[in-house]
Amino acid sequence: MVLDEDNRLTRDFVNRVLQAVEDGDNHEAYRLVEPLHEADIADLFELTPSDERGPLAIALGDVMGAEVLAEMNDYVREDIVDALPASVVAAFAEQLETDDAVAIIEDMEEDDQRAVLAELDPEDRAAIEDALSYAEESAGRIMQRDLVAVPEHMSVGQLIDYLRDHHDLTTEFWEIFVVNPQHHPVGTCRLSWILRNPRSTPVSEIMQTEQTLIPVDMDQEEVALRFQKYALISAAVVDGNGRLVGVITVDDIVHIIQEEADEDILRLSGAGEGDINEPLRESYSARVRWLIANLGTAMVASFIIAQFGAAIQTLVALAVLMPIVASIGGNAGTQTLAVTVRALATNQLTQSNTARTIWREVRIAVLTGFTVAILAGLGAGLFYSNWILAAVISGAILFNILIAAFSGVAIPVFLDRLDQDPAVSSSIFVTMITDSMGFLIFLGLAVASGLVG
Amino acid sequence: MVLDEDNRLTRDFVNRVLQAVEDGDNHEAYRLVEPLHEADIADLFELTPSDERGPLAIALGDVMGAEVLAEMNDYVREDIVDALPASVVAAFAEQLETDDAVAIIEDMEEDDQRAVLAELDPEDRAAIEDALSYAEESAGRIMQRDLVAVPEHMSVGQLIDYLRDHHDLTTEFWEIFVVNPQHHPVGTCRLSWILRNPRSTPVSEIMQTEQTLIPVDMDQEEVALRFQKYALISAAVVDGNGRLVGVITVDDIVHIIQEEADEDILRLSGAGEGDINEPLRESYSARVRWLIANLGTAMVASFIIAQFGAAIQTLVALAVLMPIVASIGGNAGTQTLAVTVRALATNQLTQSNTARTIWREVRIAVLTGFTVAILAGLGAGLFYSNWILAAVISGAILFNILIAAFSGVAIPVFLDRLDQDPAVSSSIFVTMITDSMGFLIFLGLAVASGLVG
Repeated sequence: MVLDEDNRLTRDFVNRVLQAVEDGDNHEAYRLVEPLHEADIADLFELTPSDERGPLAIALGDVMGAEVLAEMNDYVREDIVDALPASVVAAFAEQLETDDAVAIIEDMEEDDQRAVLAELDPEDRAAIEDALSYAEESAGRIMQRDLVAVPEHMSVGQLIDYLRDHHDLTTEFWEIFVVNPQHHPVGTCRLSWILRNPRSTPVSEIMQTEQTLIPVDMDQEEVALRFQKYALISAAVVDGNGRLVGVITVDDIVHIIQEEADEDILRLSGAGEGDINEPLRESYSARVRWLIANLGTAMVASFIIAQFGAAIQTLVALAVLMPIVASIGGNAGTQTLAVTVRALATNQLTQSNTARTIWREVRIAVLTGFTVAILAGLGAGLFYSNWILAAVISGAILFNILIAAFSGVAIPVFLDRLDQDPAVSSSIFVTMITDSMGFLIFLGLAVASGLVG
Repeated sequence: MVLDEDNRLTRDFVNRVLQAVEDGDNHEAYRLVEPLHEADIADLFELTPSDERGPLAIALGDVMGAEVLAEMNDYVREDIVDALPASVVAAFAEQLETDDAVAIIEDMEEDDQRAVLAELDPEDRAAIEDALSYAEESAGRIMQRDLVAVPEHMSVGQLIDYLRDHHDLTTEFWEIFVVNPQHHPVGTCRLSWILRNPRSTPVSEIMQTEQTLIPVDMDQEEVALRFQKYALISAAVVDGNGRLVGVITVDDIVHIIQEEADEDILRLSGAGEGDINEPLRESYSARVRWLIANLGTAMVASFIIAQFGAAIQTLVALAVLMPIVASIGGNAGTQTLAVTVRALATNQLTQSNTARTIWREVRIAVLTGFTVAILAGLGAGLFYSNWILAAVISGAILFNILIAAFSGVAIPVFLDRLDQDPAVSSSIFVTMITDSMGFLIFLGLAVASGLVG
């Protein structure tokens, strides 16, 4: 069996291929892999240990084509591309659409990049250099330059004849764009509308004039939100003068939506890019920075505990119970934070409903806070037969959950207003607040209530 | 200004509309909203406080159409639909494609649902009842039944004539499906291929026979992964006998990808559905359950601390420093967990690379563990001038980060093998382990090293 019930390559199949490569039986490896879809061959490389990827590529020969490279995880591809001579990379790039070729070339070292560009034929080079001139993750990087644009006066019949007669046109299009003499897009026409109408109908009569035009410097996350909001299949990209320069299609957007949502999970947990194929050194550096920041916030919390050393020595139960207050607060904060960060990222949370959303989170916090506070108080009271201690832990939990809810909304919203990514640093701040406040309120209440001292 | 630079409705615009509604100036509200895209009108409802949504809907009259309802957040829509008479909901449903109509009807109470179905004309009712007969979040629920299927022997010219002459055909299609006499799909043909070929070409010559067929009972998450992997624009849905019964298009998949990734963030943080429009009671119940589970795991940790009461009384610095060990471990665990859960969800982590991924995480943990352990040890040693204490906290942090890394991969992978959603309960287990182990190792080492007692 090649694919399991979840459409993933089976371990058995991967092992058979790798065994064949190891045995030097390249013919067998080729025979096994040749029927697979490009996306599955790309997966095969990702599942292969990195030191065996080179021999696998050699064994597969022409099956290891440009499309396979385009489908591959960025890190795995970089690994393979770095090992190939510039002329081979250039040959791959020429077989791909501009956006896929750019994806392969953009991550290379500058020297290697220049070497590949020099090998390209002038037309492809110009297209790729143009794409590279736009910022990373902008519309200009992800758009295709091959598109079908026709003048307004065409009829359906003329358009069909034009498409049949021009053999150099792309076949990868889902809509055609109607442009005026200044090459500004004035309408979009779905292919189904062209096929459903008689030859005599003017294209301008069936085109849709309300279009979503994407500025060439728009960030890809923003582009993805437009596609989602307006259920687009493709969209025209325009330059600063409003001229049609490219097209973005939804199959590229699908990857971006996935990537951007993943980024938020991974940033919230401080895991950096968080790809299992990322080089060890990069993962180390992203994660250790986060843990060191966390060490700093934990030390602030420790400093607060240290102020209550005498109280703890008098009543060691305080040391036993205090992590509960911090832990519950931290979890309540994370809940609110996750909801808020995603609502911001999907444009559901705007200035119009910020106050309402904060108020909503505070009300939820009052409800959950009372519930958990009563349970924890009951537990502590029964265990220690000390109902003042029970009241102290209940009060501390309730307050800490309230603080967690408020900071869980307010901090990401505030960072977002400052044009900072709320997923990156919110959780450090929120955890610091819930940890420190948890200890401070609990130990402070213990002293204030006369429980100790 | 109606939309801000991020394409969201401005607060000023929302306020102007709501002010007009409040003043009873429905004409002004209508005038303001009428030019907006349906998706923006849906957003307007989401940004309106829930008690003002009814009056807004009345003010907008026919602008508040079926498409607006289809674009709306589930919870907001439910709110509005519940207030409408069955005949109005039925009228909306008849204007929509089956998948959108089902989305509106599926969340209603059973009685209301029956009332709406009774109002529908027989053909629409049959289609919607058929969709409802499939499991929620399955392909059968999200597919459209209107599609273009043609026999194998057609030529391009015959196909175009067929599309032009049959006025009742859908215009919402991007590919046509070629079927055999048993109505099994034998090929898919992009519209661009039809337009690029002469009338005499047989459709069977230009169609793609390698197709991704979606079983009607496949889970939508699985469907979304196929669309992503094979860069599909649309795909045929087949029943148990392999007959073509529907089509799924990528614009619906885009929402599902977003939803499924969001679900993982929200489940990892125990926030349930985590939508800012979710009714308060549902948010409360999802979140409080998580916090109570967390209270349980925190009590386990407290129980461990309680065993070391005497040691803490002897050296109160232990109480001051112990939360650092637990907190760093928790964070390291969350990092690994986030990476693992996403790698599982996107089919990047399979049986073939599980061992390698665990080994990778353990190596990263050794590196980050040593770095953070040395820093924390230095800090504690200098502050307390106690280098045994410093060694104890260093050792505890290093061990706890290692345990965190191992359990951060192993637990979600194990849950996934048991066909459990790894995002739902992994973080409870991982936190319990890092908290309990953090305290146990730190306090245990303190006693074993002879630092106290």
